[in-house]
Amino acid sequence: MSITQAQAEAAIIAARQAAVSIGVPMNIAVYDDGANLKAFERMDGALLGSLDIAMNKARTAALFGFNTEALYDFSKPGGTSPGFEQSNGGLTVFAGGIPVRDHDGRLLGAVGISGGAVTQDFEVAEAAAAAARAA
Amino acid sequence: MSITQAQAEAAIIAARQAAVSIGVPMNIAVYDDGANLKAFERMDGALLGSLDIAMNKARTAALFGFNTEALYDFSKPGGTSPGFEQSNGGLTVFAGGIPVRDHDGRLLGAVGISGGAVTQDFEVAEAAAAAARAA
Amino acid sequence: MSITQAQAEAAIIAARQAAVSIGVPMNIAVYDDGANLKAFERMDGALLGSLDIAMNKARTAALFGFNTEALYDFSKPGGTSPGFEQSNGGLTVFAGGIPVRDHDGRLLGAVGISGGAVTQDFEVAEAAAAAARAA
Amino acid sequence: MSITQAQAEAAIIAARQAAVSIGVPMNIAVYDDGANLKAFERMDGALLGSLDIAMNKARTAALFGFNTEALYDFSKPGGTSPGFEQSNGGLTVFAGGIPVRDHDGRLLGAVGISGGAVTQDFEVAEAAAAAARAA
Repeated sequence: MSITQAQAEAAIIAARQAAVSIGVPMNIAVYDDGANLKAFERMDGALLGSLDIAMNKARTAALFGFNTEALYDFSKPGGTSPGFEQSNGGLTVFAGGIPVRDHDGRLLGAVGISGGAVTQDFEVAEAAAAAARAA
Repeated sequence: MSITQAQAEAAIIAARQAAVSIGVPMNIAVYDDGANLKAFERMDGALLGSLDIAMNKARTAALFGFNTEALYDFSKPGGTSPGFEQSNGGLTVFAGGIPVRDHDGRLLGAVGISGGAVTQDFEVAEAAAAAARAA
Repeated sequence: MSITQAQAEAAIIAARQAAVSIGVPMNIAVYDDGANLKAFERMDGALLGSLDIAMNKARTAALFGFNTEALYDFSKPGGTSPGFEQSNGGLTVFAGGIPVRDHDGRLLGAVGISGGAVTQDFEVAEAAAAAARAA
Repeated sequence: MSITQAQAEAAIIAARQAAVSIGVPMNIAVYDDGANLKAFERMDGALLGSLDIAMNKARTAALFGFNTEALYDFSKPGGTSPGFEQSNGGLTVFAGGIPVRDHDGRLLGAVGISGGAVTQDFEVAEAAAAAARAA
């Protein structure tokens, strides 16, 4: 099972609404369980440099099935896996990438958001992931 | 001026409808006038390998302001610019990428479609580009 | 649905047996439906340079759901899609990559074989794909 | 001398069994003494992002003939070789890659395991390396 078009569209719409409600235009990415792009939108005014970050957050969360910020524990100074974040062509290990699972816990894909402060990215990503799950 | 979120969304919706009407799920890409990704959707069942092609068609059309198939004339055997298609990290020079211009002819960006026969890709791209112009 | 470990192991075993029976050691690759590596074996004596080719044949067939040699029609001189084989970081468009589908026709992944003459690669790939389907 | 197909198959089987016994599906890679892929298996349910890590652990151990975690001493803050881990296109310097030597100490290749906690990866890699040596 992989994330569907309907779930991806629900994630994009929910992220867009959450971004508007906090007044921060965002880059919104959805990846499937094979770590391939499923859907994307760069809102008007969203930071161009955050395009790559949003995509890589979604890819990272899809590759490992964890929130991106959780992966920092592996690679941080004193962590178990120094240089972990350089695997897979370079991972993003701060908040804004969240996996999407089905009701049985199977990984379907992930969303990635970038364009604001990390806490804002995370908040919008939560809205997107919740909408994908519910769709 | 660059393609807007509203125009990109209109292109995606129109491409999706045209793809459904011919029964061929498509990869749909929209790039802006900076040749950067603006929006994307991989429909359920669309060929995974056409993801890269749809994006590169839109990028190619945005870079040069021509339909992708028109660029083949430069690079074909006997053309004026042998190897032209290898510039910019590799261009796509068959149909399915179409520039989007405003009413004064200024380039705003481009759409790129891949997933069917080249004639089908072109037909869906025309629907997407027309919808973007009208939005 | 994606190709399973049991199907991948069946493909490897069948390819190995077919390679032994014709006396040509082979590189044997299995990719899943997300175009990610699932299993691989380089038999003793297999050409080292064919490692990359076997993997790319399987990746190509998984990306498009066609036998690799069928894709040559798109990119050959006079074909509809000049330069098609340069998409996706470079495709392999000669025989030896065969998709694996389930009984409902859904793409599960693909096998790729390289190490002998193209006709030998194809013969071994057919044995591998048949074994994966039956597993 | 390089690791044989029989040794690689023994490593894969032993790693698979060790992974099952601890209940953690793994990515299992075997590289030869030329630092080229010899065999690979991604078990059902193994983390997709660990595919790259397993392969790079085996490649790293094959390149230097040391356990991957031993190489961290060179590159860690205060170590003799800052940036060492960025050589060779990027090395992996945490546990899970183990060289395989013959009875005279000659390097034959290496195994690399990823998919669990680093201690689990190491445990499974030890089982794989031991089986390769015994085969």
